[in-house]
Order: sequence, then C-alpha cells, then structure tokens
Amino acid sequence: MKKHYLLAPGPTPVSPETLLAMATPIIHHRSPQFAEVVAECRVGLKYLFQTKQEVLILASTGTGAMEGAITNTLSPGDTALVVRGGKFGERWGEICAAYGVNFEAIDVEWGRAVQVADVAAKLKANPAIKAVCIQAHETSTGVNHPVKELAELTKSLPGTLLLVDAISALGAFELPMDAWGIDIMVAGSQKAMMLPPGLAFACLSEKAWEFTKTATCNKYYFNFSKELKNIQKNTGAYTSAVSLVMGLRDVLRYFKEATLEKIFAEHQLMSKATKAAVKALGLELFSQEGASDALTAVRAPAGVDGQDVVKLLRDKYGIMIAGGQAEAKGKIFRIAHMGYIGNFDIVMIIAALEVVLNELGYKAPYGAGVKAAEEVLFGGA
Amino acid sequence: MKKHYLLAPGPTPVSPETLLAMATPIIHHRSPQFAEVVAECRVGLKYLFQTKQEVLILASTGTGAMEGAITNTLSPGDTALVVRGGKFGERWGEICAAYGVNFEAIDVEWGRAVQVADVAAKLKANPAIKAVCIQAHETSTGVNHPVKELAELTKSLPGTLLLVDAISALGAFELPMDAWGIDIMVAGSQKAMMLPPGLAFACLSEKAWEFTKTATCNKYYFNFSKELKNIQKNTGAYTSAVSLVMGLRDVLRYFKEATLEKIFAEHQLMSKATKAAVKALGLELFSQEGASDALTAVRAPAGVDGQDVVKLLRDKYGIMIAGGQAEAKGKIFRIAHMGYIGNFDIVMIIAALEVVLNELGYKAPYGAGVKAAEEVLFGGA
Amino acid sequence: MKKHYLLAPGPTPVSPETLLAMATPIIHHRSPQFAEVVAECRVGLKYLFQTKQEVLILASTGTGAMEGAITNTLSPGDTALVVRGGKFGERWGEICAAYGVNFEAIDVEWGRAVQVADVAAKLKANPAIKAVCIQAHETSTGVNHPVKELAELTKSLPGTLLLVDAISALGAFELPMDAWGIDIMVAGSQKAMMLPPGLAFACLSEKAWEFTKTATCNKYYFNFSKELKNIQKNTGAYTSAVSLVMGLRDVLRYFKEATLEKIFAEHQLMSKATKAAVKALGLELFSQEGASDALTAVRAPAGVDGQDVVKLLRDKYGIMIAGGQAEAKGKIFRIAHMGYIGNFDIVMIIAALEVVLNELGYKAPYGAGVKAAEEVLFGGA
Amino acid sequence: MKKHYLLAPGPTPVSPETLLAMATPIIHHRSPQFAEVVAECRVGLKYLFQTKQEVLILASTGTGAMEGAITNTLSPGDTALVVRGGKFGERWGEICAAYGVNFEAIDVEWGRAVQVADVAAKLKANPAIKAVCIQAHETSTGVNHPVKELAELTKSLPGTLLLVDAISALGAFELPMDAWGIDIMVAGSQKAMMLPPGLAFACLSEKAWEFTKTATCNKYYFNFSKELKNIQKNTGAYTSAVSLVMGLRDVLRYFKEATLEKIFAEHQLMSKATKAAVKALGLELFSQEGASDALTAVRAPAGVDGQDVVKLLRDKYGIMIAGGQAEAKGKIFRIAHMGYIGNFDIVMIIAALEVVLNELGYKAPYGAGVKAAEEVLFGGA
Repeated sequence: MKKHYLLAPGPTPVSPETLLAMATPIIHHRSPQFAEVVAECRVGLKYLFQTKQEVLILASTGTGAMEGAITNTLSPGDTALVVRGGKFGERWGEICAAYGVNFEAIDVEWGRAVQVADVAAKLKANPAIKAVCIQAHETSTGVNHPVKELAELTKSLPGTLLLVDAISALGAFELPMDAWGIDIMVAGSQKAMMLPPGLAFACLSEKAWEFTKTATCNKYYFNFSKELKNIQKNTGAYTSAVSLVMGLRDVLRYFKEATLEKIFAEHQLMSKATKAAVKALGLELFSQEGASDALTAVRAPAGVDGQDVVKLLRDKYGIMIAGGQAEAKGKIFRIAHMGYIGNFDIVMIIAALEVVLNELGYKAPYGAGVKAAEEVLFGGA
Repeated sequence: MKKHYLLAPGPTPVSPETLLAMATPIIHHRSPQFAEVVAECRVGLKYLFQTKQEVLILASTGTGAMEGAITNTLSPGDTALVVRGGKFGERWGEICAAYGVNFEAIDVEWGRAVQVADVAAKLKANPAIKAVCIQAHETSTGVNHPVKELAELTKSLPGTLLLVDAISALGAFELPMDAWGIDIMVAGSQKAMMLPPGLAFACLSEKAWEFTKTATCNKYYFNFSKELKNIQKNTGAYTSAVSLVMGLRDVLRYFKEATLEKIFAEHQLMSKATKAAVKALGLELFSQEGASDALTAVRAPAGVDGQDVVKLLRDKYGIMIAGGQAEAKGKIFRIAHMGYIGNFDIVMIIAALEVVLNELGYKAPYGAGVKAAEEVLFGGA
Repeated sequence: MKKHYLLAPGPTPVSPETLLAMATPIIHHRSPQFAEVVAECRVGLKYLFQTKQEVLILASTGTGAMEGAITNTLSPGDTALVVRGGKFGERWGEICAAYGVNFEAIDVEWGRAVQVADVAAKLKANPAIKAVCIQAHETSTGVNHPVKELAELTKSLPGTLLLVDAISALGAFELPMDAWGIDIMVAGSQKAMMLPPGLAFACLSEKAWEFTKTATCNKYYFNFSKELKNIQKNTGAYTSAVSLVMGLRDVLRYFKEATLEKIFAEHQLMSKATKAAVKALGLELFSQEGASDALTAVRAPAGVDGQDVVKLLRDKYGIMIAGGQAEAKGKIFRIAHMGYIGNFDIVMIIAALEVVLNELGYKAPYGAGVKAAEEVLFGGA
Repeated sequence: MKKHYLLAPGPTPVSPETLLAMATPIIHHRSPQFAEVVAECRVGLKYLFQTKQEVLILASTGTGAMEGAITNTLSPGDTALVVRGGKFGERWGEICAAYGVNFEAIDVEWGRAVQVADVAAKLKANPAIKAVCIQAHETSTGVNHPVKELAELTKSLPGTLLLVDAISALGAFELPMDAWGIDIMVAGSQKAMMLPPGLAFACLSEKAWEFTKTATCNKYYFNFSKELKNIQKNTGAYTSAVSLVMGLRDVLRYFKEATLEKIFAEHQLMSKATKAAVKALGLELFSQEGASDALTAVRAPAGVDGQDVVKLLRDKYGIMIAGGQAEAKGKIFRIAHMGYIGNFDIVMIIAALEVVLNELGYKAPYGAGVKAAEEVLFGGA
C-alpha cells in the first residue's frame, strides 16, 4: 500500500494521539473548562520558550505573529534592521514596508548566516535602529542565524529590540529566550511543535513590552497588549481556536515529559544523520554555515532539477519534502526533520532519495546513504 | 452521566463526523492533494455565500476578516458609517479607529434594528461615506439588521460599499450576497458553519474589488488581493490551516446536500420554537424587532440575574449558553440555535431553563415551555 | 439538523472520548504495552463486578460468555434449572439443549419476575440440579429477577451454582457478585458498560471454578480455564480485541472515578423519571414487578402498535428505542436508560414520545410527560 | 521521537482512516442504517473471498471461526485429517479433540509444506475422512501449504471437505475460494484485512452447507446456519460488533478499489524484498519451501537468540515483530508484511535488523540489507 510521508518544513506530521485530542467535542472559549486548558498551556509554553514571560496564543499562522511583533513595538517612521538571507528574511522587510516602518537591510547570500560584525556595524552606524529582525532558522535555506550573539549586541542597546522569527526553530533546537535576551520570539504551531497550522505564538521581553506603550503602528486583530490582558485571565481577546488549543495542551505535555534537552538531542541526531547521508551520496549541503538541526537543504547535483526530486518523491513515492523557493528554486531540495518523526523516517527518506536520484540519472549507490545515516543514528556497525 | 451541551453563539457544536474528518493525517498545503480539497471548498463556499465571487479563506477568527474588510477597501482619512446596536457594531468602529479611518456612528438601542431611513439620511447628508458597516445578525442582542434594504441604498451609490459582518448569520438564514448586492460579507467558521474556531471568510463584490485598488490602509497578513491570487490557484497566501480546511470540505458537502433552503427552514423552526417557549414561560425577548433565527436573546425576569441563569446551567447542568455582554450583562441570556444541533436540543434547553428558573426563584411551570416548543417544532398535539 | 439518538438496550451510545481512545494506533496483544492495559482493566473489572475473582475478557458478544458459563461448569446429562420469563431466559435453555445439558424450566409470564419460592421448590424437588440460570435483568421485558434472594438459596447448596446473565444489568444497578454469592456473572460490553459490542466478560466464584474441573461439555474457544491462565499473565488465550480493550480501560477509569454508587443512583433517577413520565401520559409499564433501572418497558396504548412507535421515532425523528420481541412484539416498546446518556436524554425521549403518540392517534398532552420527568430528575418546580 | 511500528503477523497496523471510520457514533445493529453497511460488506467480502457464497461475519477471533468450521460440518466420531506443520495446524487437531471428532495427523517438519502425495495417500487409505484441515499460510513458520492442489484432491471426493484456515492469508495472496474448490475458508480481521482483532469470517461451499445439515457437533454461538439466515437479512444472529463492521466496510472499499491483483502484487514485492534483504545479510529463511508472501520467517544466526532480536527491536527501537513459537522459539524471528504497510516499512525493518544484529554480535554490514531490498522494491540502481 502506498503510504504518505511528510518531511517538509511545515506543516509537519502530527501524532495520532494529538489528532485525536483535537477531535474531542468543542468546548466554549469562555468556560472554566477551557480556562483550565489555557492555564496548563501557559505553563507549558513558558517551558518551551524558556521564559518567565507570558506567551501569547494567536489564531493565525506565524506570519500574523511576525506582523504583530512589528506593529506592537514600532511606529511609522521608525527604522528597523532586517537581515535578508532567504524568503522569510524578506518577509520582515515586507511587513515593515506595509506598516510604514523604514528599514535597512543586510542582504546575506542565500545559504549563509549573517555576520555578527555586519549587524554590529549597522547598529553603530545608525543608533536610531529600533529593531533587529532576524530568523532563528531561515527555512528557505536551512541556515541558523547567530541569534545568541545578536542578542549580546541588542541587550546593551536600550533603544533596540531583537525580533526573532522562531517559527521553524522553536522546539527543534536551543533558543532560550530569557537567557539569551531575545526581545520578541514568534512561533507557529505547524513545525517542530507538531501541531496543524493555525496557531501562532508571540513572547515579549519586559523591554519589548515597554516598546508597546509608545508604538503607534496600526493594529487591531494582532493587538498584543489586549491579548496579554486576556491570556492572564486564561482566555483570548477573540474566540480562541479551541480545537487547536486542545492539541497544544497535548504536545506541551509531551515537551515537558520528554524534556527539551532530549528533544533537541534527537533533532541534532536526525540532522547529523541526514547531512552525513546526503554527503555519502556525493551531494552538497546548501548551507555554507549555520546548518540547522531543523532542516537539511541539499544542492541538487549537476544535471538534476531540484524540483524533479521533489515531484518524483511526492507523486511516485508519496513523500512530501520541499523544493527551493525564489532564487533557490530548482537548485536545491529541503528535507525537514521536525514534527512527529523519528530516526527511521530518516532511514526512509534517505533510501527514497537514493532511489529517486538514480531515476533522475544521478548515480547514487543504493544503501550508501542509508549506511551513513545508520552509523550516525545507531552507532558504528 | 453528566453530558455537556453547547448552545452558545459560537463556538457551536461540531458533528462527530466533521471532528473525525479533521483528525486525518496532515497533508501539505502546497500539494496537489490539498489543492483538490481547496478546489472543492471554493465551489461549496460560493454556494453558501450565494455568490459568483471567490470566497477567501483566512487563518484567523472572524474579527480578522472584519479588519481586512476595512483595510483592503478604505484609506486613512476615509469616512465609514458604522451602525452600533451591540458589541459587534462597536467593533466596526474600533477597527476603523485603529486604522485611521474616520467614522460616523448610528447608535441603535441594544435590542433594536437600525432604521433604514436613518442610514439613508446619513448617506445623503455625507456623500463622502465610503462604507456602511453593519452586522447581519448582531450576536450580542439577537437582532438582525435590514441588510437587504441597506443594500438597496448602497447599490445605487458608486462610492459607497456595504460591509456586512455575517459571522453569526451565514448558514443560519438567508443572505444572498449577489442577489442583494452586498459588497463584502465576512464570516467565521465557528457559528452556523459548524466548524471549530480558526477560519474566517471574506467575499468581495466586483465593486469592492475595485475599492481594493486604491485603498491605502496598512495591511500585510490580511491582504485580500494576495489571497485572491492564491485561492485562484487553490492555495493560500500563507500556510493554510489544513486540518480546519478538511473540516470545511466536510461541512460544505453537508450544506450542498441538505440545501440552504432546508437548513434555513430548520433554523427558523428552532428559532420560533425557542421564542414561543420562553414566552410561554412568561419571559420577554430582548430583541424588539428583527429577532434573529440564529439566536434568542431573553430578558432575565425581574429578580433574576441573567448571569446566574448562565452559570447555573453551565455549572450544575453542563449546558453552555451565553449571558449578556457590556451594557446587557446580567439583564439577558442568549440561547443560540445554530451549529450541529437539532429540534430535540431545543426541547432540552427549554426544559433546563424551566428547571433553572425555578431554582433561581422564578416560577416557571414545568413542561409549559416544552409544550410550546413541541407545538412549534412538531405541530399541534 | 436531524441528529441521531440511541436509547435501545444495547448497543448503547459510547462517549466521544471512549470512541477516540479506541482509535489510537493498534498495539500488539503480546506486548508489555498491552499487558499494562490489561493489568489496569483487571483491577477495574474487579471493581465493577465487586469481586476478588479474576474477570475473563472474551472476544465475542455476551451470548458467547453465556455459552461458556454452561460448558465450563456442566456436563452432558447434567440438569440445569432455567428461569424463562423472556427471550434471554429462553436462551439459557437453548444453550443447555445445544450442549446436551438437561434442563427444567420455570416459565414466568413475560413482564413478571420469578418467585423465589418457585425456584426453592424446584431445587428441593430435584437435588440434582447443578445450576440455576437466570437474568439479572431480562432485557426483553424490563424486569429484574431477585438475584440476591436466589443466591441465598444456591449458596447453601454445594452442588448447585447460580449463573447470572448480567449482560444488560452490570453497571446499571447493584449486583455485588461476591457479597451476594453469585457463582457466574456474565456481561457484555455494549450495554451499561458504554462500549461498542464485541467484548464479553465472565467471572466465576471459587465454587464455580471447582465445577470447571469436572465439566465435560465440549468447548474450545470459550475455555475459561485457559483464559484464566492467560489473563493472570495480562493477556488472552487468543488474539485480544485490542481496540475494544483500549476502550474498556477508558470506561473502567470512568466507573472507578465516578463510583458505582453514584452511577447506580443516576440510573435509578433516570429510570424513575422515565417511569413517572410514561405514567403521566396515561401509559402502563409492562413490568408488573421488578421493574429494572436499566430499561423501561411500556405497554403500547390501545389502538397503537408498539412497533409503530419504534418505527416513527426511528425513521422520522432519528431516535432508536426497542420494540417488543417474540410474544411481546407490537404490544410494548422499550426505552433503555443506560450507556453514555444523561438526564436530558430522558427529557428528550419523553418529549419525542409525546409527539409520536399523538401522531399515532393517542392523545398525550404535550409537556405532561416532560413535566413528570423534570419533577423526578430535578426536584419539584 | 520514538515512534512505534507493528510488523507482527497480527494484529497488523490499521490505517488512520479506518480507525476514524470506527470512531463514528455507534448505530444499532438492527437498524436500516446498519443493514446498509452489512449489505455493502457482503458484496465486498464476496469479492475478497472470490466466491458467490455468503461470507459469515462473526464477533470473535479467527479461532472461533475454525471451531465453527469443525462443529458445523462434522459429528462426534467423524474423522478429520489434520496437517500439522506448525502451531496453527495443531489447533485444528485440538478443536477436533475438544468436540469428539477423531483425527489423523500428518506431521510436517516445521518450516516445510505438506506433500500433496501424503495427503492423497491418507485419503486413499481412509475413505471415511470427512475433512482435510489445513492452513493456507502457517503463521508460525511462514509456510504456505499447497491449497490449490489439495482442493484438487477433495473436489473429487463427495464425502470429504477441505477446511482452510486463511486467517493470515486472505488478502495477502491469491486464494480464490470458488475457483479452487475450497469448502470452508475462515479468516480474521487483524491480518492482511487491516482491521483490529475482533471479527472472524467463514465462508462455506455448497458442499459444505450440505454437511451442516447432518453435523451433530455441539454448537450454539458459532452456529453457521443461524448466521447465514441472519446475514441474508443484513444482520447477525447476535449483536454485531458494529464499530468493527464500520471499519470492515472501509477496508473492503479499499480492496475493491485497489483490486486484489494489485494488492497481491504489492505483498509479493514486499515479501521478495524482505527475503532478498535477509539473505544479503547472510541469514537463512526458515521456510524450506512454500515461503509465504505474508510473512518472512528467518533463522536467527548462530550465536544469536531469536527472542533477543525481537526484544531489542521492541524495547529499544519500538518495532514489534514476532519470535518463534513452541519448538521454534529462540530459533527464528518473523517479519510480517501485511496490514497497513508499504515498501518503506520494509526498508525500515531491514535497517533496524541490521542495527540490532550488530548489537547482538552478528556482523551485518550496514546498508547491505537495505540495498538488496531497494533493488527488489524499486528496480536496480
């Protein structure tokens, strides 16, 4: 029987148990019953974000939370510094533009991480920069930016926030919001959080909450102060997406029980195995530094269109990975290792890759990639 | 065993079948498989909205779609006319204010529908009004505003749109967007559409799409033009809330199969029965005109706090209805008759009401309300 | 929307939570994971049966367990005493006959309970009687037989067992196996246990286990000794019906948490309310004594065919109750009050009954039955 | 995340869709709604059994249907011929013994198929043999017996039936009941039929139905004539296991749509790949002939206990395969390739086997088994 597999960077597979948790009868979003669920989620989200701050739960995708991060802390005419090293870096700029916020951009070659020194130079050159906008993991390239180091810079600047899009990062690798000094961290339900799409999250440092007091960007639906007041009462500003929140409780229980430490180690292992395996097949990583544990972006070998790899896996083998976006289209393909997956899913995708590459004319010796993956995942034979 | 019942005006009960349809394994939002689902939803939504226009599917609650209706058609400094006869009327004004749109308000006593003549007068007095913002059903009062008649007014004004919040109306009673000439109709998943909260819908007339070309209000996440381009390709601008969309397909199949005509008749019958029953118990409707088929708002009898009715039903009997909001708090309680409910749910809530009223000191003869409900629902004995 | 209701004496409604518990991925019946589930069920079943003995879990319906009760304790040529006051009493006799066990019968008028004195007389007259076979609740008539008193008789007879079919009784009302001295109690999953059909249960006293050592009736699949050895190792003789057992764990947790005491009281209340309501409508109970808390059997009024009541409820109103069987066909209809139902389901069925009786030409004043039900369920108005 | 895999010969994985189909609200087993489901199942079962006869649906595991096959066609004192080449062959004998049926046995070395000539000789030597009892696939050894050839023998003998236990065979490979002339074929839900355990099936040829008329073995619950009368009316003799039957409808739709031809080819491919892979790892098949497409039984290599392979896979890697039973315990392990599994599950189990064998001290070069599997499953590299 042809089964279906999802190894794309969002949405990712959701466990059967979580799917069933979301299929229980609908409860009202202003009931004591639901308040209890929210109360439990608040604790779980703080653990996941590694913060003492409240984490807001929004009914939208992650982009809505990104928009809110800008509009709740900045005002038209303010200047932001946007790191653009992929499709999602560009999104920060687009949002600024849409709301009248000026921005300077550091354009980083796709596949590379931003240089901390470049950011430092920009901040020094323009002290009016009120926000540095970055991706923890730039999903379009598989690269992690140096969030910890950037936070070191912004921590010392009272007039500058660090806004981190952690949509495809949170839950996959270490991002301790408070310890590092991140000012806003936004996340989405459908990546390493192992939920369906439809929930976004935003968490603000005290410093960021201060900024909200003077920010004059237009906003209504994504009003963080209003959401804060509501979540402190275990509810939301508008009708909560109750079924998704039921699922949220379920995955947060898992995160707590499994511990972040163990979960991050698992992602790291799957990531190392995937990277070792594609190299064993003679392929190159797209990321030249900062390769993320959430995703492996691979250059399509000479003569092979990355989109064909994606389509053949999808249409013939029922496996959904992702291709390249925008300028990387056709040049790369991307294997996510987050969501409800385990070590044997890595074995599976590598075997499938061996098959598909051969079908597309690239000689990948059967078993060679799998062998490399097994060695990383399970220790030497 | 204490069972739980949900007769609040959103979220409403979702059928077990739809809940299970949403529990199938997650599929990717950019896959041919999901495109097929969206394609089917597009047809179903047009049927439900009674329109030839595309209906946008947004990952947010209805308020997000209301915001988008304003920001996609108006510009800062424009003037809107807002009918405020309840909490949701006020929301139109709040959104305008949040985005720099001026507005004039017609304040209607809670419990009453707006007078068409009053709107006509306003429009005549100020030809610069670019949008009339109204609720088809003002959920906080149980009143329907005269949308059809208002559309008659705006249809003849090339510079004025009619924006209708149909969040708690669509699917409960007749609202033929094209036939009446509504310019924007927004809806939410969690009312008569019988889905969990988390999806919003917006549909624009050709006239409204024209307005989007010059509207300069800030917007990013709720960008209707971008969503239009995407849905025409059977996808969304951002990650679609795939599990909710699976449920959407399921309910739209039901709407199509059952026919709107039959569904509206069922709501009307349940509404009539509820209203007859509360009157038989000596209670008064809160709505003085335009009583909606989606909801029955009831004045708490002298000496009884409406909130106590709500709480006792909820905490002792497991039945969730709604209380009054803002100025109506304590004065009324609201019984919704939409979502996955049937005639016997009306019998149930009326019996429960008889019980609870007696417990609160109001003499409601057992069986009297139920008798009245049965007569309407099932014909004379 | 036409919803569906199930108030028949098995299968009964199963809670959404239990249905979802059974939809988790299949686990192996010889795994530590499943052994844990069985271990928990063993404890829960002992609580439910009020026994220190092991309760066997069989993959069959209750009839299989009845067959096993006979074949595991008796031998061809042995004599049993069978109380026949309905369809299921007859089944005991049919099973005896099928396996070469002689039986004497006490034929009780349908609708009546057996007289303890009649059983005592039979036992005295024929000391060779090795088993008294009875229903705790004769589902076809809604009558409880005096199990406690019969156990008093058999307890003092070392050569005679009391075999109790508790299929539609266990979980609905008090049946303390050990305290009363019942020798075999068999049950089924699909009645008051609130599970789908497919599991049967059998529990044997020490005295009954002694009988198994000499019983020579043919048996293979329903071999209690073999099942005992297996369940003591937290498994079953053959492949366990794992999905149903997952549901079993779920309901047993509920029984434990809610307590038998409270659950029996709830059944009693629903039963009283139903009986009061049908009397208020001028109808008569079919049971002339021993009316069960699990079921209300009602005589169809003059001029009304009981089957028509059943069919109209089912086909027009989506409500499934049961008609009469065999000689009671057409004369009665039966409303079960067990499974995943609550007080408002009683209100619902009584209202529906009022409607249907009127449609069939019997004048039942709307609200009169509901009023009576409300008074019992919720206290005087 | 550690995921769980089930590659044991029953229960096998059930698809999420089928699990959800069984989670819909319970319907009554004597309702028009359920009759429709049964009617559809009857057609689907005939397709699956490749027969014009009615297929009986029993609430039990497969063993119950085996018992029924004996008791419904034979009488005490009759003689059966039982082929014993594994645990399930022995079961035929045990059932005969339990019901007073004499039997002659052909004891076949575990791992071998019966010789048709040996059966022919027995039949010739004792014309009183009324039934030949065999496994289509002896699950304990992974061997297929030559059912087609045996049917050739029994077809010409008017007084002799061929009883085939197809529990772990039906749906995995070709077994055309009518075309081959099988007299009784029994099956279980939890193997290649991709359902949870709890349903058994039995199908009788006209010749077998003739035998039922004179068979005097004791029986009550497993009374095939009674079941036949009931299923012809789209119901069952006792309460049907409705939730499992809902799942049955779902899988039968799949069988029909996918076609038996394609499904058998898929099993064959997975079987070939598994067998090639274990050989590539230097292991030997346990089956010396008639290796089944449903299962691969592998000899544990020298120095490795087969049970350790099973336990390590289960406890460390979350993968459930089966060990050897009775005399094969410790000597073999068994990988099933049936149920809701696909080609990549074969890749997965082979990789896992490579890992586990190494951990147990047997040198299995990483990737070597996977390579062999890939070549069979996907064509040469």
